[in-house]
Amino acid sequence: MPSPSEITNAMMQHDYFSQWLGIEVVSSGEGSAVLKMKIRHEMLNGFGIAHGGITYSLADSALAFASNSHGQKSVSVETSISHTQSLREGDEIVAIAREEHRSNKIAVYSVQVLCHDKVVALFKGTVYRTSGHWE
Amino acid sequence: MPSPSEITNAMMQHDYFSQWLGIEVVSSGEGSAVLKMKIRHEMLNGFGIAHGGITYSLADSALAFASNSHGQKSVSVETSISHTQSLREGDEIVAIAREEHRSNKIAVYSVQVLCHDKVVALFKGTVYRTSGHWE
Amino acid sequence: MPSPSEITNAMMQHDYFSQWLGIEVVSSGEGSAVLKMKIRHEMLNGFGIAHGGITYSLADSALAFASNSHGQKSVSVETSISHTQSLREGDEIVAIAREEHRSNKIAVYSVQVLCHDKVVALFKGTVYRTSGHWE
Amino acid sequence: MPSPSEITNAMMQHDYFSQWLGIEVVSSGEGSAVLKMKIRHEMLNGFGIAHGGITYSLADSALAFASNSHGQKSVSVETSISHTQSLREGDEIVAIAREEHRSNKIAVYSVQVLCHDKVVALFKGTVYRTSGHWE
Repeated sequence: MPSPSEITNAMMQHDYFSQWLGIEVVSSGEGSAVLKMKIRHEMLNGFGIAHGGITYSLADSALAFASNSHGQKSVSVETSISHTQSLREGDEIVAIAREEHRSNKIAVYSVQVLCHDKVVALFKGTVYRTSGHWE
Repeated sequence: MPSPSEITNAMMQHDYFSQWLGIEVVSSGEGSAVLKMKIRHEMLNGFGIAHGGITYSLADSALAFASNSHGQKSVSVETSISHTQSLREGDEIVAIAREEHRSNKIAVYSVQVLCHDKVVALFKGTVYRTSGHWE
Repeated sequence: MPSPSEITNAMMQHDYFSQWLGIEVVSSGEGSAVLKMKIRHEMLNGFGIAHGGITYSLADSALAFASNSHGQKSVSVETSISHTQSLREGDEIVAIAREEHRSNKIAVYSVQVLCHDKVVALFKGTVYRTSGHWE
Repeated sequence: MPSPSEITNAMMQHDYFSQWLGIEVVSSGEGSAVLKMKIRHEMLNGFGIAHGGITYSLADSALAFASNSHGQKSVSVETSISHTQSLREGDEIVAIAREEHRSNKIAVYSVQVLCHDKVVALFKGTVYRTSGHWE
């Protein structure tokens, strides 16, 4: 069975949107993932700050890597995010995904998005664990 | 006071991420917004389907336009999304934002994301209505 | 296979908390449920209005009845609620559950809670559809 | 200005539903609250386990006490909960509310509900901080 890093690498290789975001995998483990990226000009919204979809996307990639790390293919069924702090161009952000609960079919993860150790977004995601496996 | 379309246009003009997504404004009204876009290759994830952040971003832009349409600057405080159907490259999607509740300080919106009249994502967003106004 | 009403009746018979709440089933159908109840003194919180758990509980019962109505036993995996209006002792409220999406394993429902045709709470619930059936 | 415990006591005194639930305040601090209660027969649902509204209600009370602890009256605007484990009659549960973010007008809290140190529910709540104060 592949390791968490092997699964994350396999996913990242074809994850063109995470590549566009400039996501780098800092670490990946059983049920966890740490990612980072930098806010670029084309990620801003009409208020001159990062679009809410940018931090969501980083957190959602962290959810995908953390939840697939056990080898069982998992798909998101419900996610929520609170944006607590605005981000500017050039800001570097880190997402830390943690497994809060895992049963046979359902698992729940929290993802903290930080900028200079300050929480900028709080994300919670629930996945359905399919019968498919990473090989 | 500017009209809903004038506000949406002013927001879109500096919303570089919505521009990158290729979002087109179909219509905008008091408390509502209808947007559309097409899934491109660089929007796919490791499963070969649209990254969850893409539909979230479209819905979040619809929330921003609908909630700012009354002239009072509004910021998202909490959003959630259920992805109910996978999307492939070339799929065209439409987001329809509707105001479910509005009080002085808080308002709630639902956004349906459709592909060929099939629901592909269900989004709910709560905003805080600041004391600033669009001019 | 039992009908939606037969399933709802079977569930209500042992649902001691829904009984304590004074929930009455107005109607039940395939993927839907309409319930009503009245706010009593012992349901108030420290602000003299209905505790948030009361409207949540009514909506959660509506979710349970609507999602089990197809005969497949279903359990809640994630729910969210926005309380948009305060409720006082004596207020009568109605919950209307609607199926927004249903696949083999996952289904999503929205529940509107109304008081005199005004929305007092907006609820969204995702369920996991188990392999067990109502008989 | 009253202390966190004085505010919690003042709220509990008129919180008839928290009293019905048998909620006991274990501790209260600036932005935090720890509560406990026991599952009784009349709290069960049609599956013979605690109704989802019971754990939600405990978590929602913890949110109310934690968010009002700073002296500024705060009202819930959006809450979500994942039920991760079933509860039986006689089970004792503890809710631990933690402040994840607080700005002038909006604050976000997470609440873990535990039974024998096992997570049975994960709750997230966003409040609006009004201009009213506890005296």
